Amino acid sequence: MSNMLIDCCAPLAAETLSAEEAAATAELFKALADPARVRIVNLIASAREPVCACHLNEPVGLSQPTVSHHLKKLVDVGLLEREQRGKWAYFSLRADAVDKLAAVADLKGVCC
Amino acid sequence: MSNMLIDCCAPLAAETLSAEEAAATAELFKALADPARVRIVNLIASAREPVCACHLNEPVGLSQPTVSHHLKKLVDVGLLEREQRGKWAYFSLRADAVDKLAAVADLKGVCC
Repeated sequence: MSNMLIDCCAPLAAETLSAEEAAATAELFKALADPARVRIVNLIASAREPVCACHLNEPVGLSQPTVSHHLKKLVDVGLLEREQRGKWAYFSLRADAVDKLAAVADLKGVCC
Repeated sequence: MSNMLIDCCAPLAAETLSAEEAAATAELFKALADPARVRIVNLIASAREPVCACHLNEPVGLSQPTVSHHLKKLVDVGLLEREQRGKWAYFSLRADAVDKLAAVADLKGVCC
């Protein structure tokens, strides 16, 4: 675990935000700033169990290499966990990342 | 109000997600995928009252035109509200957008 970019994020509602935290938070949003990645995260969230990469390309409507590229980005930023099972990789949401993402995007405490 | 992009977003954890909803959700994240915009939203959230554009360029460390460009993007996507007071514009978080952003990024119900 850790040294993932998501660990460096700070909530949008943080009392103070360093330049590094703002950059990490922006990177996290950037990882999700793509319709295919939004769909991939949605499909994995809906499955509620690890999803084989081989089951994502059809619903997302993209080739296997393109889906793999998006999966790698989501793993790199720390949102997804990758588990190798034989020839295929399976992907699931990282529980700590789910908490972090919700905290980062929550402005309700300070608004409006 | 309304016809804002943010109104078309669907949560990452939605049971089904149309191509249009995935695109709108990705656009919302894209609006926040920039360190300057993260800082601007953070400063406005911390202020808890409308903030003059003229008070943002110094803490963000960017020129007034650049800050205005970022503010326009955040208004266009529906996160901020713009109010003209004399020669200056004041910006605040839109309450419905705050709720929507928190809902969009919340995967806790389905994870892990």
